[in-house]
Amino acid sequence: MSALAQRLGLRWPLIQAPMAGVQLHALTVAVSEAGALGSLPAAMLTPAALRDELQAIHAATERPWNLNFFCHAELAPDVQAETAWRDALRPYYDELGVDPAKIAAGASRAPFGEEATVLVEQFRPRVVSFHFGLPPAPLLERVQRSGAFVLSSATTVDEARWLEAEGVDAVIAQGLEAGGHRGHFLSDELSRQLGSFALLPQIKRAVRVPVIAAGGMADAEGVAAAMALGADGVQLGTAYLLCPETTTSAVHRAALQSDAAAHTALTDLFTGRPARGIVNRVMRELGPMRVPPHPAFPRATAALAPLRAAAEALGNGDFSPLWSGQNNSGCRAVPAAELTRALCRGFKGPEE
Amino acid sequence: MSALAQRLGLRWPLIQAPMAGVQLHALTVAVSEAGALGSLPAAMLTPAALRDELQAIHAATERPWNLNFFCHAELAPDVQAETAWRDALRPYYDELGVDPAKIAAGASRAPFGEEATVLVEQFRPRVVSFHFGLPPAPLLERVQRSGAFVLSSATTVDEARWLEAEGVDAVIAQGLEAGGHRGHFLSDELSRQLGSFALLPQIKRAVRVPVIAAGGMADAEGVAAAMALGADGVQLGTAYLLCPETTTSAVHRAALQSDAAAHTALTDLFTGRPARGIVNRVMRELGPMRVPPHPAFPRATAALAPLRAAAEALGNGDFSPLWSGQNNSGCRAVPAAELTRALCRGFKGPEE
Repeated sequence: MSALAQRLGLRWPLIQAPMAGVQLHALTVAVSEAGALGSLPAAMLTPAALRDELQAIHAATERPWNLNFFCHAELAPDVQAETAWRDALRPYYDELGVDPAKIAAGASRAPFGEEATVLVEQFRPRVVSFHFGLPPAPLLERVQRSGAFVLSSATTVDEARWLEAEGVDAVIAQGLEAGGHRGHFLSDELSRQLGSFALLPQIKRAVRVPVIAAGGMADAEGVAAAMALGADGVQLGTAYLLCPETTTSAVHRAALQSDAAAHTALTDLFTGRPARGIVNRVMRELGPMRVPPHPAFPRATAALAPLRAAAEALGNGDFSPLWSGQNNSGCRAVPAAELTRALCRGFKGPEE
Repeated sequence: MSALAQRLGLRWPLIQAPMAGVQLHALTVAVSEAGALGSLPAAMLTPAALRDELQAIHAATERPWNLNFFCHAELAPDVQAETAWRDALRPYYDELGVDPAKIAAGASRAPFGEEATVLVEQFRPRVVSFHFGLPPAPLLERVQRSGAFVLSSATTVDEARWLEAEGVDAVIAQGLEAGGHRGHFLSDELSRQLGSFALLPQIKRAVRVPVIAAGGMADAEGVAAAMALGADGVQLGTAYLLCPETTTSAVHRAALQSDAAAHTALTDLFTGRPARGIVNRVMRELGPMRVPPHPAFPRATAALAPLRAAAEALGNGDFSPLWSGQNNSGCRAVPAAELTRALCRGFKGPEE
């Protein structure tokens, strides 16, 4: 049995990647009950909504689960950047009949802070994972004292070494293939981001803590290959996007099952930070990466939100973030427990 | 024993990636004699020099080997692009005392054509591989009639399907991690390029011909992982760059063994087509990818060549193409036969 699985009380060392915006506790519970590690992403939940989700998990499972936070720095609004962004979107406002004067600016995602720390101390998730580095030391220490096993994502060897030095219990090696937000935090040069085949073994050699592979895996063969490359465990998200336990939107589901799914790109249009999604109209027409001034993460979302809503009401995902990894060939509209068991056939050994 | 190895008369299904500019027949012969498939890159050789290399291989080994060609379309010179490129380089000409008036424009690499076809017919390599698609049908047919097993690189699922339809015997799935020139030919949108973890299994499912993994592998564990992902064979280049049988320059060797090696990027500065190399001064200062007008492949090389020569004479690689994959952790200054045997420990089965 895998040492990591044993340490976390799991049947298999597989983590369902937390996916803010497309899942709530139902997916977390289904994956954890199946013997892997379900995750709940907190970034898009208010403290009250997060508490509700945590209570729902608490009521539904006694298995280990993972609570995930973004830990970006909150930047003040930048009027010039907000104006430039709205100017770029003006033709779309006209086309879809949206009045930009009525759009409130604001942050679409909340960083880890005091209220979340209290919830960790209260609900004591077995695992807490962070994206974009780690929170300030006083908060991190409280998470550690709660007994949580702490994870964070590394997209370079340097980030893995940094996280180990800061005391994480394991590192997620996030390969360039992964869907959703890139977790980089030491450098924002995207050319530093490595494919899983290059990243995973180099991180494995650089740190002593367990290394969890993320990015590019879609099925049991992918899981087996990551383990052959030295991973201590794996994290998959995209494969779960069609499961009935997700809240993936209709346009997102349709995109994943279309020919368009073959072409993903990193884009900062939707939030202000690069994230991988299926290329859609707004990414094609504006280009997937904005030249500054562009609202800093996560303030780019607000100006797009009414366009997304209007387009989705018309049945299209032209303005929706269609997050997906480069390998979405493993997406299946089956219960998450069934998918988890299928993926875990990639682990060799007595679990089988 | 692997079906691909058996078909090609190899002990192991490992191809040494052809690397124009850093190797001649010595590496080809060493790898083939060791039981894998050595490659000779023809792109930077005149027909006379190519003939000499082929005679040297012929005299040195009876094992199978691979002859590799670029098969780009030759474009006419573009005066505006050449002028713009030289204008961008003017501060460097001044700094290094180079007189741009004395630089002859021209193509740095030759595409596959009539003379090369005759050499294939005469020397009958067991394998012929192409990069950037395939040559015109009449030439390709002559290569096929020579008895050669024909390979070409696919960087997307669409390219793999296209190559299979055109009659290749196997497809090289070139993941984004790979060093040197990207082989894309159906689309030049770099966001379509996939990491090996995503590319390999999707190509494997899309075609019936054997699929050879390239990009990101650096050691036996990488080879084993690629095979676990469904590869029928593997191709590695970067790992060989320090072998004594290469002609890798001193500045290139030094870069590969320095901390700088951790940061590679795709750049079209050196030739006009995107290729992966270690980030150096000219890539940092001009940005790795040029906005047009920039001389089309392979005409960007000429204007840089005297800067490269002048800088290398001063002992630095500021203007040199330092080709490398994202995972250069497997580079070892050991004989190519020893490295080949070490890599082939990644193949399971009776070969071990």
